[in-house]
Amino acid sequence: MARQGNMLIGQSGGPTAVINQSLVGAVLEARKHKAIRGIYGALHGMKGILDEAFIDLRKETKAGLEAVAATPAAALGSARKKPTPEECARVFEILKRYDIRYFFYIGGNDSAESANLINENAKRVGYELACWHIPKTIDNDLRENDHTPGFGSAARFVASAVMGDTLDCRAMPGVKIDVVMGRNAGFLTAATALARVRPDDGPHLIYLPERPFSFDRFAADVTSVQARLGYCVVAVSEGIVDDAGELIAAKFSKEVDSHGNAQLSGTGALGDLLAQELKARTPITRVRADTFGYLQRSFPGVVSVVDAREARRVGEVAVRLALGPEGSGTVVIRRKPGKAYGVTYVRMPLASVAKETKHMPDAFINAAGNDVTPAFLEYVRPLAGPLPKIGRLKRVSIPKRSA
Amino acid sequence: MARQGNMLIGQSGGPTAVINQSLVGAVLEARKHKAIRGIYGALHGMKGILDEAFIDLRKETKAGLEAVAATPAAALGSARKKPTPEECARVFEILKRYDIRYFFYIGGNDSAESANLINENAKRVGYELACWHIPKTIDNDLRENDHTPGFGSAARFVASAVMGDTLDCRAMPGVKIDVVMGRNAGFLTAATALARVRPDDGPHLIYLPERPFSFDRFAADVTSVQARLGYCVVAVSEGIVDDAGELIAAKFSKEVDSHGNAQLSGTGALGDLLAQELKARTPITRVRADTFGYLQRSFPGVVSVVDAREARRVGEVAVRLALGPEGSGTVVIRRKPGKAYGVTYVRMPLASVAKETKHMPDAFINAAGNDVTPAFLEYVRPLAGPLPKIGRLKRVSIPKRSA
Repeated sequence: MARQGNMLIGQSGGPTAVINQSLVGAVLEARKHKAIRGIYGALHGMKGILDEAFIDLRKETKAGLEAVAATPAAALGSARKKPTPEECARVFEILKRYDIRYFFYIGGNDSAESANLINENAKRVGYELACWHIPKTIDNDLRENDHTPGFGSAARFVASAVMGDTLDCRAMPGVKIDVVMGRNAGFLTAATALARVRPDDGPHLIYLPERPFSFDRFAADVTSVQARLGYCVVAVSEGIVDDAGELIAAKFSKEVDSHGNAQLSGTGALGDLLAQELKARTPITRVRADTFGYLQRSFPGVVSVVDAREARRVGEVAVRLALGPEGSGTVVIRRKPGKAYGVTYVRMPLASVAKETKHMPDAFINAAGNDVTPAFLEYVRPLAGPLPKIGRLKRVSIPKRSA
Repeated sequence: MARQGNMLIGQSGGPTAVINQSLVGAVLEARKHKAIRGIYGALHGMKGILDEAFIDLRKETKAGLEAVAATPAAALGSARKKPTPEECARVFEILKRYDIRYFFYIGGNDSAESANLINENAKRVGYELACWHIPKTIDNDLRENDHTPGFGSAARFVASAVMGDTLDCRAMPGVKIDVVMGRNAGFLTAATALARVRPDDGPHLIYLPERPFSFDRFAADVTSVQARLGYCVVAVSEGIVDDAGELIAAKFSKEVDSHGNAQLSGTGALGDLLAQELKARTPITRVRADTFGYLQRSFPGVVSVVDAREARRVGEVAVRLALGPEGSGTVVIRRKPGKAYGVTYVRMPLASVAKETKHMPDAFINAAGNDVTPAFLEYVRPLAGPLPKIGRLKRVSIPKRSA
């Protein structure tokens, strides 16, 4: 029988549209098992653990939790905090003091690393702790996972946004640059390709962190599309790098978090730079840039049904695995082979998703490095779900009567 | 009986989520009336008229038109073009050449001005032309109108965005600045106040073009909210001006259209400036700025039902009025008095909505000039429709066990 004790759960890193599904999935699953006594939530992740800012999740009603599940952002509050070795020791003391035997941390690779540090500490001194990472990141860059909860809904948002933006740009022709989140991996920027219904739909160009970005190539690419269609919609990852691997956006950002990551979002500087450089290199006059910003991860009401369901499941599965013989680990999403979309959830060691992230595979990027491949579209389509239907006029011309 | 002849319709100015409802409303209404023979669409507004780039809207199926009605942006294409006196004369020659007796121009105050110029030309030479302006603008700044088609859906988008952003900012505390469209009037920025469900919800501060903006006041206001709540969400209009009435954003923009309007959207410069000035004036370190950009007017799937219905009706009503004895004019939306929301559509002269725009009335802005009043919320709520439901944890604390 599983060890009796209390459970602690926290949320970490950037919020998503469905991270609360994972929280609620874990909490409601935990309530079914007698081995789990207290169900505590840590406010603002690692920070809340160090401050002992815990709330009683047994005091929440089921209806209240379901409302939270359908709400974007992190209901417990989040943080970007990597514990120092001293803090790890303190966290561990706190877990002991509250008789925490089940610890769940919902987040990305940095959060998996934090969970791994705590787990190592517990193992070293023989403290029985089921320590679990629950995957979440709109960047979709967790190793071992086919995809991650949060990505599908963000993909749905950015694809919808570019779909509308293409219509807008076709109506008022010019060049439109849309800057999309994704620090290390281009998956989310690539997902804007779902906006295409007809062959001439935008995004017409896609620039990813996986390929070096050249201003001259960019200007030539845009000029070519502009000549063909009379307008051009470009999706650019905030994480694009130059030939030397330096972040183009980092020229404007001095701010870093405790994991050493530069601030990329919450500023329009990269989009404005790209617009300015394009105007300097081409005769194109109407150039606009939008940075989708935090709307990508927190816009209420734009959620992928598949993503919400999977986010709920990884929370439930983590609790069930924690009660079994597996000890600690992370829940990994694997896609079932075959035509129909389906996934399985498997346990992997914490270290397998911690620290390093994964990138877009070469098979998903076109040879020119400015678009995705059909293989990527096949991969991403079921994750974002069906997008809004778009109508277009047939535009049958009236013969000109001018002299 | 109404004069027999052809009809021409065009779309002008910034696209909206429902401008195609007005187009389709007018076209389907026109098909019911024998006096209207050809139903032509001008591509890209005034530009398409001058180029005789006309399409046959009788060749579109009803199902196709309905799909277009539900699609954001301008299906005919749009333009920001004010015709010169020579161009007005040419437009008039073209209308005669195509036997256009019914002309409809969907747009804002600049479009009404263009329609008025053409109408004056026709009157001067005794050419029988029913010349109509159909209202549209997310800025909600057309005179005589209680509100304008396009505004409700944009209000719905920005309020949803700030609702999600408040959750995001509460989860990762700091200051968040959201820059909202609205060149001369603050209605759309003000509509972000609909995001508030509980008293401490954002936006906590709202800055409008109707009140002079001071960086020092802004810094003091944010500091005060930050001290009270630990985070702060600010909605700022792109059209904010300094004490001298100069656009703060204009410092970054050299680009103007043929109506003399500076480019405000499609750049993150204003948000970045506000963030930078706030960091310089306060000890606050985490400051982020998002500029909602073109998503506000073109995001598919986020539409106010009331707005879509009214946009359809103004198109239908314009055609019906054009066939009556009223000659030319614009369709104006009036709100019915009383508790239940309802509107009527009335004819007004073209000049009554052309050129000058209207501003937020004083009764809608609080005394401090950094928020809206309950009267504004009552005004705007029915236009945006019910927003997504938000769940929140009760957060019952666990007593601390630290020594």
